[in-house]
Amino acid sequence: MTPAPYAVADDDLVLLTDLYQLTMTQAYWKEGMHGRATFSLFFRKLPPPRRFMLACGQQHAAALVSRLRFADAQLDALAGTGLFDDAFLVWLKGWHFSGDIRALPEGTPVFANEPFMEVEAPIAEAQLLESLVMNLVQPETVLASKAVRIVLAARGRPVVDFGLRRMHGIDAAVRGVRAYRAAGLEGTSNVLGGLRHDLALRGTMAHSYILAHDDEREALRAFARHYPGTTLLVDTHETLKGVGKVIEIMREEPSLGVAAIRLDSGDLGELARGARALLDEAGLREVKIVASSGLDEWQIEALLAEGAPIDAFGVGTEMGVATDAPVIDLSYKLVEYAGTPRLKHSPGKINLPGGKQLYRRLGDDGRYAGDVIALRDEPGLDGEPLLRPLVVGGRVVAEEMALADGARERVREALGKLPEALLALDPGEAPYPVALSPGLEALRRRL
Amino acid sequence: MTPAPYAVADDDLVLLTDLYQLTMTQAYWKEGMHGRATFSLFFRKLPPPRRFMLACGQQHAAALVSRLRFADAQLDALAGTGLFDDAFLVWLKGWHFSGDIRALPEGTPVFANEPFMEVEAPIAEAQLLESLVMNLVQPETVLASKAVRIVLAARGRPVVDFGLRRMHGIDAAVRGVRAYRAAGLEGTSNVLGGLRHDLALRGTMAHSYILAHDDEREALRAFARHYPGTTLLVDTHETLKGVGKVIEIMREEPSLGVAAIRLDSGDLGELARGARALLDEAGLREVKIVASSGLDEWQIEALLAEGAPIDAFGVGTEMGVATDAPVIDLSYKLVEYAGTPRLKHSPGKINLPGGKQLYRRLGDDGRYAGDVIALRDEPGLDGEPLLRPLVVGGRVVAEEMALADGARERVREALGKLPEALLALDPGEAPYPVALSPGLEALRRRL
Repeated sequence: MTPAPYAVADDDLVLLTDLYQLTMTQAYWKEGMHGRATFSLFFRKLPPPRRFMLACGQQHAAALVSRLRFADAQLDALAGTGLFDDAFLVWLKGWHFSGDIRALPEGTPVFANEPFMEVEAPIAEAQLLESLVMNLVQPETVLASKAVRIVLAARGRPVVDFGLRRMHGIDAAVRGVRAYRAAGLEGTSNVLGGLRHDLALRGTMAHSYILAHDDEREALRAFARHYPGTTLLVDTHETLKGVGKVIEIMREEPSLGVAAIRLDSGDLGELARGARALLDEAGLREVKIVASSGLDEWQIEALLAEGAPIDAFGVGTEMGVATDAPVIDLSYKLVEYAGTPRLKHSPGKINLPGGKQLYRRLGDDGRYAGDVIALRDEPGLDGEPLLRPLVVGGRVVAEEMALADGARERVREALGKLPEALLALDPGEAPYPVALSPGLEALRRRL
Repeated sequence: MTPAPYAVADDDLVLLTDLYQLTMTQAYWKEGMHGRATFSLFFRKLPPPRRFMLACGQQHAAALVSRLRFADAQLDALAGTGLFDDAFLVWLKGWHFSGDIRALPEGTPVFANEPFMEVEAPIAEAQLLESLVMNLVQPETVLASKAVRIVLAARGRPVVDFGLRRMHGIDAAVRGVRAYRAAGLEGTSNVLGGLRHDLALRGTMAHSYILAHDDEREALRAFARHYPGTTLLVDTHETLKGVGKVIEIMREEPSLGVAAIRLDSGDLGELARGARALLDEAGLREVKIVASSGLDEWQIEALLAEGAPIDAFGVGTEMGVATDAPVIDLSYKLVEYAGTPRLKHSPGKINLPGGKQLYRRLGDDGRYAGDVIALRDEPGLDGEPLLRPLVVGGRVVAEEMALADGARERVREALGKLPEALLALDPGEAPYPVALSPGLEALRRRL
């Protein structure tokens, strides 16, 4: 293990796995089990009130696992556990992923029981990926799926990510921006996340800046002079008085071109109306109003429903951990080994054997009409096959699938094609139709 | 920025901040504001049903920020935003944290409004730490505070972390183990997390291993031969039949010394009773029963209340993201600048000006009787002062505070001293008494 005290180096990621993945892999190796296995990644139920999830992170995960290797430091660490034979560790030194991964393109809406990634490889390779793939895919999917609800609630108004301080550590914060970009956010306050994942950096000012100055008006003026066209925070003491100070500053120095004021506490709807009236009276119709303060999609919907003149939203806490559904019950299940479909018996749960394909049909109205989960090579099915080759023979073949732009475009397109009921925030009644193909039904019954 | 595609290198962490921290820092620099500031880290309310939180991560964060520097690649990235003057970037190149940090030792129980870390430094240094410190401290505090409830519910039975696959990315998974260790977990399945943060590695086997074999009995036997003394998963097909197979294997080869069976689905209480009876009948009283499957503290409490003969618990999903309270409303507030206490006006919220100390009093029964939040140097207060110097003049002075062992011991000790009502899972009525000192009350009124 790299002795880095804080960061987790790429070399260490091969050890970011559950111990049993390594002990099972050694067992397969000892037993000479080198047959090809297919593992399927899916979740069993949509966490309420989600009507769909956006599959996200699988391309990033696939690209990473295609490069995993055991270096000497990591092998030494494993040797230290006393669980692994020397000969196995020698074999691990040459281990790499040589298999195939098919996946839904990032940003694809996905429903319960649908495969969103299938890994096919010698079992000792496919098994070892499980924990890492799930750890990587789950947060991006969870965060993108929360963020898109907030984007929908904002009805076209820009939404900016303020979540860094609430997210679960470094990686969640950096890759979260990747998911937010896919979901359609306009910008992020997170510098590293935004730079790395190409989402516009946005920032206003904090109460501390105002408080560090002896006078609010002077603080606002100083900041506006440093950053003409900036957004000024007006609620440090009394919000509408703060707005008044912004108006005075703009009257004295119109060249500062303050672009917006930000409300971060209190009754946002009432304060936005009050602020709008003051700004309009002062002829500052072009100065926009940004609101933040523990917002989620429900509050944004309610604010807009009551006609609050808010032009943009900053969202942190609720989106940063997706508080209402911070986890999905993602499974990575063995569905085929050595040419034979496999099935775990689980009372009350749907387990689907065999490698698969997912088809999505468009209705006459141009919207998605329903999905069919089918066997991988089952003929005669309608709709667009959604699982696409991403890694073949251990190499990423669809580099373009890794582009964040692709996911963002795909989400935008999907929002125009999802049945309208699914775009509402409420859980609703009628689920999106997902059927099993005749071939898959027959195989399932047979097993 | 380091072009590492996956990991976040230590050098990049200085950019893991909100944009406004950097623009405000440039503003302070331009205005010649070099006065010392004190920022206080606290949360405003306990997320129900938490009765206390375990402060965790602050020592790790302090050690990290004491080493932050802007290297050329990071400065180039900032230059590319067009927001920063060349002269400021030159100044940032020499930037480092030269201030003081006082903190609660990790593992200390903490309540609403109590300072658990105070940062005192020239304002441009202290301001820049905000986002990163919060991003680092929050997940460890959230995860340790959830995990300790699960440890309490298990009433002395070992609890093992199975959460890697559910946690929010790489850093959450690795540092989560640090928090779990503090909270008193017995082990973790997470190899990298356990190796890095010195928690015992534990692992059983997955359903995929059983399914990859054509026969469950042969799979169990093979695994037990590879790993004498292991834990065997018995619920892949029918749980009690699986138990029967383990008994047969042990009868034929007692030297395999199977240590435990694991139940991972179904009615865990009923299955545990059934399995226990079968094992006891077969004379295998020493074979223990491990249960997992979406467990949280409430389910563990209910299982033990109904007398389920379960010897150890594996907990993943619910602990991995602390689903019931995945976030705390941590604040990092400016409380003093240039010798003057500062206070934001927030209707309905408690804001406490000035640098502080926290005192905890022991009652006659040897348990914590109540806390007093006081001014930093206020005389005449009873109890143990809990904020201790961690970084002085930019250097970590309390290396021993960074040891995970310290936190684990501290939690163990604290569990014996917290009022008993606070150890129950239910939210309960009477909150732990936290008062403001006369000096702090007076200052607050004056402002």
